[in-house]
This record gives sequence, structure tokens and C-alpha cells, in this order.
Amino acid sequence: MRFSISVPASLAKQLDQMVAQKGYDNRSLAVADMIRAHLVEHQQQFGDKEIAGTITLLYDHHKQHVQAALTDIQHDHHEVIVATLHVHLDHQNCLEVLAVRGKAAVIKRIADELIAAKGVKHGKLTVTSTGKDLPT
Amino acid sequence: MRFSISVPASLAKQLDQMVAQKGYDNRSLAVADMIRAHLVEHQQQFGDKEIAGTITLLYDHHKQHVQAALTDIQHDHHEVIVATLHVHLDHQNCLEVLAVRGKAAVIKRIADELIAAKGVKHGKLTVTSTGKDLPT
Amino acid sequence: MRFSISVPASLAKQLDQMVAQKGYDNRSLAVADMIRAHLVEHQQQFGDKEIAGTITLLYDHHKQHVQAALTDIQHDHHEVIVATLHVHLDHQNCLEVLAVRGKAAVIKRIADELIAAKGVKHGKLTVTSTGKDLPT
Amino acid sequence: MRFSISVPASLAKQLDQMVAQKGYDNRSLAVADMIRAHLVEHQQQFGDKEIAGTITLLYDHHKQHVQAALTDIQHDHHEVIVATLHVHLDHQNCLEVLAVRGKAAVIKRIADELIAAKGVKHGKLTVTSTGKDLPT
Repeated sequence: MRFSISVPASLAKQLDQMVAQKGYDNRSLAVADMIRAHLVEHQQQFGDKEIAGTITLLYDHHKQHVQAALTDIQHDHHEVIVATLHVHLDHQNCLEVLAVRGKAAVIKRIADELIAAKGVKHGKLTVTSTGKDLPT
Repeated sequence: MRFSISVPASLAKQLDQMVAQKGYDNRSLAVADMIRAHLVEHQQQFGDKEIAGTITLLYDHHKQHVQAALTDIQHDHHEVIVATLHVHLDHQNCLEVLAVRGKAAVIKRIADELIAAKGVKHGKLTVTSTGKDLPT
Repeated sequence: MRFSISVPASLAKQLDQMVAQKGYDNRSLAVADMIRAHLVEHQQQFGDKEIAGTITLLYDHHKQHVQAALTDIQHDHHEVIVATLHVHLDHQNCLEVLAVRGKAAVIKRIADELIAAKGVKHGKLTVTSTGKDLPT
Repeated sequence: MRFSISVPASLAKQLDQMVAQKGYDNRSLAVADMIRAHLVEHQQQFGDKEIAGTITLLYDHHKQHVQAALTDIQHDHHEVIVATLHVHLDHQNCLEVLAVRGKAAVIKRIADELIAAKGVKHGKLTVTSTGKDLPT
């Protein structure tokens, strides 16, 4: 199946460099691999178990509405977001790290929502344990 | 920029499901996010490249010396550790999240050292970009 | 170093009560802490002196533009704002704590600007030392 | 009443400089003023009302036991300490900022305990509101 996507020219350029460096025959094969990698991660089971973790977000705070959107999402879930650490990387780029604690499935959903928000360049959910039933 | 890619129909179908589940407005935005995520992963192999990220640590602060050891390591590298967020999960378990920024090779070494420290139950390095050369 | 001071008996009595209530091991440790606290206060009047500190802000993130305004001010001064800790107090109220480090005059100006921003309900600058020339 | 206190020589020296700069006739008058200033602060009423705030601590992490002591106190009260931000100022000095939320009297007691801990050079409790009953 063939479909077309539109991405910024500068991103397409970096994609092509990476595709070449990784030795793929063409762009489609590389993107298909990326999609599969994300499917594998997405399909992991996130259940009722209480976890601790972090959600790391990189965004440009000048992009319209991104910060308001992120804050709205975070306040909607303030009972699982313990605190957020914000580092001003430079004049436009922000690193935001949320310390989270709650049911795995809830946290996965919040992470998805934050990472998919327009203006977020990169985001990642990092899962660890609350330590309760993890022996030393 | 618009380009087409061809992927198996079944993969395209699963992609579209994931795009909807994650709450993206359209397929292009989701694929652009995947490309950026892979660029971030790809670029961290170059040791000299400046990256931003987090090191997440779970430990029991009652274990002898663990906290002193972690603080010593962190102060030895205070120029790359921007700040550390500490959450008291319960009477013994600590979640510690370091916001870091510096050369990829240096940060990996610090993460290895911290995660290997006696008393650390679980640790993880999460790499993102400083945003400078990651296009939106 | 040992030196004597003479104070009214009633003041000495209240001092000793406070020393006990605050849990100090002895009077000297408590007085040394007071001296250091006053040194910190005294030294911040010299605008060129490098200080560390925090700026605490309470605001309602639903108020239009408040968050964008605060972020803009912070990014304009990202070289003195080490990191910002954000706590989602409830659906609307935010506690934001900036860890700062730089020349006293610069930090006071930033604090004034942030506290005066529309939508900030309460703000406070808390000054401490970078520790370099504050004896133990 | 006359009593003697013992403080590090370097601290006594800085005290004398400040006493001169502030125009006090002698050291005793200055120290008496400091004691009174601290009494006024200490005697403020801290009741049952829920507050938010920060506790700012400056300490040298090389001083024996200081960090273990601070962490123990914090974990004993983990239900009112939301999160702690730690900044590595230099090889020895740490800036630690606790975001707190709870009954005023409880928070005052924790702050006293932390600030009185041996090895803490300077500490300060900054009180703000949870925002609930503070109108914009």
C-alpha cells in the first residue's frame, strides 16, 4: 500500500541522511521499520499495576498553544503527576520532565496524549517501579 | 514537503489504529514524531554530540552509603547535571530523576556509573535532543 | 573561636526556649545559624554579588496568557534560571518554584517581573548563598 | 546576662564585618537584634490551615551524615513533601528546595528540623497559599 505523508523539508532531509547511514535501500523500508518499532512499544500491556516513572518532553514554547495544551492535560491528571521539572534549554527549546505515579494504563494514556500534542518535538515514557515489590 | 512511502497494507492499517489511539490529528504528524524519535536514538551514538535527557533512579535510601555514593558521582559531574528531582515514594523508596545535558558519551558513562551503584534497584537513561538541530 | 556576648536575661531565656523548640543541639549552633542567615540577607544588597535562591509563584493557569508570559520571561533569562519545579496543586492552581543563580541585582529584577505578571496571585523571592563564601 | 558562644573563626570574622557595615556599636547589640528577629519569625502562628510552600536548604554534602539526616527527616514526612529539587552548585555545595503542602504547623516543624540539622548552612521556609481561597 502506498500513501503519502507531509513533513517539514528539514526533517525529510535528516531522515534521508539517517536512512543512508543505516544502510536502508530506500525510505519506505526505513519508515516501515520505524512504524513497526512504535507498534511493538504501543502494544505493550499497561494494566492496573501501580508504577512510578517519568514522561520526558521536548518542545518549542514559542509554538502556539503547546504550553497551554500541555498544562491543561497535566492538570486534568494532577493526581498522578507528582511534579514537573522544567529546564529552559535555550531561548526556544524546553525540556520538561514529569514525575508520575499511578496505574500503568492511566500513565500510558497521559504520556500518549502529551507526546501527540502539536508542538511537542520528542517525548518518551520511562517506566520504573514504585519499589514496593521490587527486591533490592 | 510531501513524499510517498509504500508499506504493506496490514502495517498501514495498524498504523492508522495507533494514530487514532494516540490521539494524533493525522497520520503525517504521527509519522513525523516517529522519524524524530528515531533521529534522537540514532544521533546519540555519536559520542561528541550534545544531547539532553534524564537519568531515572529507584533506590532504597536506607541502604548504607547509596545516597552518599550517588551524590558524590553527581557532584563530580555537576557541569552536565542541570538539576535533580527527588520524590519520596514511601518510607524507604526514592525516585530520583536527573535532568542532564552534555556530550552523549559523557552522559552514558555517568548513567552507567549511577545505575551500577550498590543499592540502586532500577535505573534508566532516557535520551532526548537539546532541540537545536531537531526540526519541528 | 569562642566569644561572649551580653544580652538581657529575658532575651537569653526566650533564645534558649527557641533553641530547644527548633531542635538544636546547643545555643552556639543556633546562634551560628542566625549569623549566617543575617549574612545572607546582608550580602544580597550588593547587586554584583552572586547568589543562589528560589522564586516561588502561585498562579491560576487558566488565566489567559499568564503561563506564556511567565515562560517568556524565564527563557529571556535562561542563563540564571537553573530549573523550574512545577506542582499542579489542583485543577487550576499552580505552584512554580524557580531555582536561580546569578548576580543579586539581576535575580531581584527577574523576581519583580515574574511576581508583577498579570495572573500571578502570590510570589516571593527567597535568597540564599551559593555557599562559596558562607562559612559552615 | 552574659554568655559565650563558639563559632568558626571565619564566621566570626564575617560577623564583625557586617556589624561594622551596619553601624552597630558592638557585637552584642547586633546579635541581640538577630535573636529578636528570629524570635519574631519563630513566634508567628502556624495553625491547622493547609498551606503550600517551599523549604530552601543550603548545605555541604561532604559534611558527615548531613544528607542521610535530611533524607531521613524528609521520608518521615513524605506525605507533605511533594518533591525535592536538588541543584549541585559546585563540588561541595548543594541547594535543595522542597515543595511542601500540608498543615502550616506541621510544615513549620519540618522546616525547623531540617534547618537545625548539623551541616545545613542556611535554610528558609517560604509560605504561600494552596490558592484555593486566595482570590486572583
